Order: sequence, then C-alpha cells, then structure tokens
Amino acid sequence: MKILMCVPNISEGRDLKVVEQVVAEIRGVAGVKIQDVSSDPDHNRSVLTYLGEPEAVLQATQAMAKRAFELIDMSKHHGSHPRMGAVDVVPFIPIRGVETKDAVEIARRFGKFVGELGVPVYYYEDAAMRPERKSLTEIRKGEYEALPGKLKSPEWAPDEGPAVFNPKSGGLVTGARFPLVAFNVNLRTDNLEIARKIAKAVRHINGGYRFVRAIGLALEDQKMVQVSMNLTHYQKTPIPRVFETIRSEAARYGVSVAGTELVGPVPLGALEEVLKHYLQVHDFSMEQIIENALIE
Amino acid sequence: MKILMCVPNISEGRDLKVVEQVVAEIRGVAGVKIQDVSSDPDHNRSVLTYLGEPEAVLQATQAMAKRAFELIDMSKHHGSHPRMGAVDVVPFIPIRGVETKDAVEIARRFGKFVGELGVPVYYYEDAAMRPERKSLTEIRKGEYEALPGKLKSPEWAPDEGPAVFNPKSGGLVTGARFPLVAFNVNLRTDNLEIARKIAKAVRHINGGYRFVRAIGLALEDQKMVQVSMNLTHYQKTPIPRVFETIRSEAARYGVSVAGTELVGPVPLGALEEVLKHYLQVHDFSMEQIIENALIE
Repeated sequence: MKILMCVPNISEGRDLKVVEQVVAEIRGVAGVKIQDVSSDPDHNRSVLTYLGEPEAVLQATQAMAKRAFELIDMSKHHGSHPRMGAVDVVPFIPIRGVETKDAVEIARRFGKFVGELGVPVYYYEDAAMRPERKSLTEIRKGEYEALPGKLKSPEWAPDEGPAVFNPKSGGLVTGARFPLVAFNVNLRTDNLEIARKIAKAVRHINGGYRFVRAIGLALEDQKMVQVSMNLTHYQKTPIPRVFETIRSEAARYGVSVAGTELVGPVPLGALEEVLKHYLQVHDFSMEQIIENALIE
Repeated sequence: MKILMCVPNISEGRDLKVVEQVVAEIRGVAGVKIQDVSSDPDHNRSVLTYLGEPEAVLQATQAMAKRAFELIDMSKHHGSHPRMGAVDVVPFIPIRGVETKDAVEIARRFGKFVGELGVPVYYYEDAAMRPERKSLTEIRKGEYEALPGKLKSPEWAPDEGPAVFNPKSGGLVTGARFPLVAFNVNLRTDNLEIARKIAKAVRHINGGYRFVRAIGLALEDQKMVQVSMNLTHYQKTPIPRVFETIRSEAARYGVSVAGTELVGPVPLGALEEVLKHYLQVHDFSMEQIIENALIE
C-alpha cells in the first residue's frame, strides 16, 4: 500500500464546532484515517493529521480546505502563532511507497484547486518553484496582515491563484517534505556549553550532517542538558549515525548519554535504520513485521 | 486493536485444490487477514498463517479445521515431516494487546470444539494441562501410526474428545505460545567450535538465557560460522541482550560479528526492545509509529 500523510494547520483553535465540521470532510473520504486533531486556543490554530492512499488524501484535503474557507474568516482572526490564511499551511509527507516527487505532484494538484477557489497559493519545501520560497518562515514573514502589500510586488506573485488579496481566506502555503523525526539526546552534565558545541557539530548549518537541525538546551529540573534535533531525512541522515556522533563528541568532555527521546510520530522506516545499524542485519525488510499484514 | 495470530499445520502439501478449499474457510471470516500459505510436497504439509481479533481468529480456525477433517484422510497420508493428524498442530500466538492467558483460553475453546467433532486433542506449550505435555515433540512421538496404541494408555488420555482412535483425522495438538523470533549471528571465523561454545553460553539448557534455543552451524560457502537461535520470549529475553552477549563471547576468541539475520515474521514489539536498548529511549510507545494509525 502507498501511504501519504497530510498535516494541515488551520486558523481556528477556539470554536471546536467549526474544527469538527472541517474534520468531518476528511472523515467522509473512504480510505483516509485521521490520526490526530490538536486544537490550541492560544494559537487559535488546529493541526490535523491524517493518512492514506495519495489520491484519497488529496480528495480529503480538497474537501477539508473548501469547508474551512467557508467557515473561517481571517479578517477576524487573532492568535499567537504566525499565520497567513484560513488554511495556513498544508504539507504532504511521504510515509511508505511514495517518493518525494509523488508528494510534490499531489501538492501541486492541491495548489491548483485552491488557486481556482480564488486564494493565492505559495509552494514551499520540496514543491517550491523558487529557491527563496523553500522556507515557510520566509513566505509567511509579516503574516496575514502583510499579505495585501506583498501581493502588489512581483517578488510575491503567487504560484497559483490570483495576485489579489482575499480578506476572508488570506493565503495558503502547500508543499511536500520528508517526515521529520524529533530526536533529543540528554547528557549527564549541567554545562549548557557542551550541548551547544555538540549541536553545532552535528547540524547542517555549521558543517554537520545535511539533514539535521539542532540546538543545545538546559533541562534545569533534571540538572542535565539536551541536544534537541529535527532529523529532516531519516534515510539520508539516519538516527544511529547522528546518535553515535553525539556520543563520541560528548565523550571528549567526559560526558555520557543519560537517555534519548523520540517525540511524536515516527515512521517505521526510521526504526528500520536503527535495527540495521545496531543489530548488523543486512537484509531486513519491513514486510517481515507481523503487524504489516494488517495494513492493506 | 487486539491481535492474535494462528499458524495451523495441516497434513496436505501436494493437492493444492484441497489446501485452497481449507484456506477459503479462513478467507470467509471478516477481520481475519491471511499472511502466508506455504505448502511443502516432500513434507506433504501446509503451514497457514493468519491474524486478527481473537474471536474472529477462533471462528476462522474452527471453520478451517472442520473443512480439513472432511477433506484430508490420514489413513492415506505419507510425508517426511512428523505428523499425528489431519490438522496436526494449531498454535495461537499473542501479537498485540493479547496476554498469554487470553491465547490459552482461545486454544481451549478451539480444543473443546475439535473434541466434540470426535477428534482426540492434546494441549501443549502454555495451554498444557500436564507438564509432560508442554513439548510438541513429546506429544507427537511415534506420530499418527502410534496413536491407536497410545490412546489405550491412561498416560495418553486426550485432554478433549474421545480416547478412541479416529483413523481419518488422527489427533490434534493445540495451545498457545509466545511468538518466536528466529535470529542468527554470523561470525568472521570458520572455526565451528567457537559457534558451538557461544551457542552453549547463551542457551537455556546449558545455563544461558531462559528463552533462548541455540545451535552452532558452519556456513561453508561463506567460510563463516553461525549461532542460530530461536528467541521464545522477546520481552523477557530481548534481542539486544542476547546479541551483546554473543559479541562479547566472540571477542574472547578475537572473533567479530560479520552480520545477523532476522528470519521470517517479527513482531513490532521485538523491534521496540532494540530501539529502547541502543538508542537509550526510555519512553517510547509503539503508538508513535505512524503506520500504526492504519491498524484498526
């Protein structure tokens, strides 16, 4: 089975009746499983997580967005999280048997659909059509309030839809990205400088691994420090390689690893890398996992 | 979801039309997924593997057995694998959210059903009612041909069904056991004695881990040796502990691990142990694995 995940962030986190009506559109599509719905009243934002066959996920996402555009009015929206539109950001994430290019194609079909509804659309991450639009932060700079001005400049001409401000719906960012793995390593020291040095050693921006973003943090209650990471491509920069580098860097300071955390959802493929590395299993296939027989 | 697996071995491996009619009974039960059907003409035996909710699996197994008793005649059966009956052995295996005691209860309900069809039944492994009946090898000693004689002795009075020989169906062995993990470690030496010594170090019978069966083998083509194991309880004797013991024992002889093999089906729970051990993740839940959302 091919599995694509979609994690739209919509700009409603207070009126749960509205959220439920939007989620009902996803639930109505056969073959799509909703994994999680989290609403944050301070952010006034909800994160929907669902997955299934790519075509079914596209259909669910179109129905979801159409409904959200009807029900959410951005001209009245307030919340602490950065946002630009009623359906703010829609990442499509390959989980199994789906290549990045397939996810990009789905994102582009979704973008066209949204553009035809009269909402300006920007493609980001692996679906970006200009390098300066890869980053969500860059696209969303100035938020909803800056959008009328930005739309007047050719630099911010949308990738789909009209270059005209839509006060009710704002703008939408969609694209494809590999699933993130949130991985934290806790170190038996309270010396924050060590965590920061190790974060620099492993993260891309300072010369480390290509698909690692990392910061050093203090865990004050536990009198420890943490290297907190997002691994943005667990196949090309696998968990065990990063972990062993951290262990070795920490040893330079006489510091050992107290434990690690895998936060939130993890694709089975990321665990396969752990197995292959530490058990030295050269020929393991995820198909050998018994529970896989139940994924149709 | 609760998941129970059942792996009946039936005494027909040549006439695939018969095998298909037996398998069709399993396929007819909603909520049961057939994972594998392997027929061996030399053994004249087929191994069926399926899983699902415990009640659905019981229902499928009853229908399967009834059909096999109709279609298979043990008085005409020849094959190289030890066997005692048309439906020779029926293990129920807890996979997820099912305790051994629940699997034992299902095995006992299945045994009663078979007994009422006039077939003598013996309970083995975790469902055994006498310690000397824990082992399938012990129960099946002398095979189908010895059954008429054994049934006359009180020592071999069946646990269910009549103490009367049923020439068409023979006897049936059913029970519950934890899933086996077949795990082999290949060593960079052609000295078989080293593999044998390490097998003795880790296996239960010689003082090793409680849930390990192991032998040393030569891999002549590869000029290596192998410690070939069945881990019979991956929670109580987890893979990483056994692997690290083998690595350390091998180091005594200056031998390193060339690689390992996980053969056949592996429950996700066994991989969770690998993750927790090597990544030092203290709080990981299988529910975090994205694909789990698809297992209803």
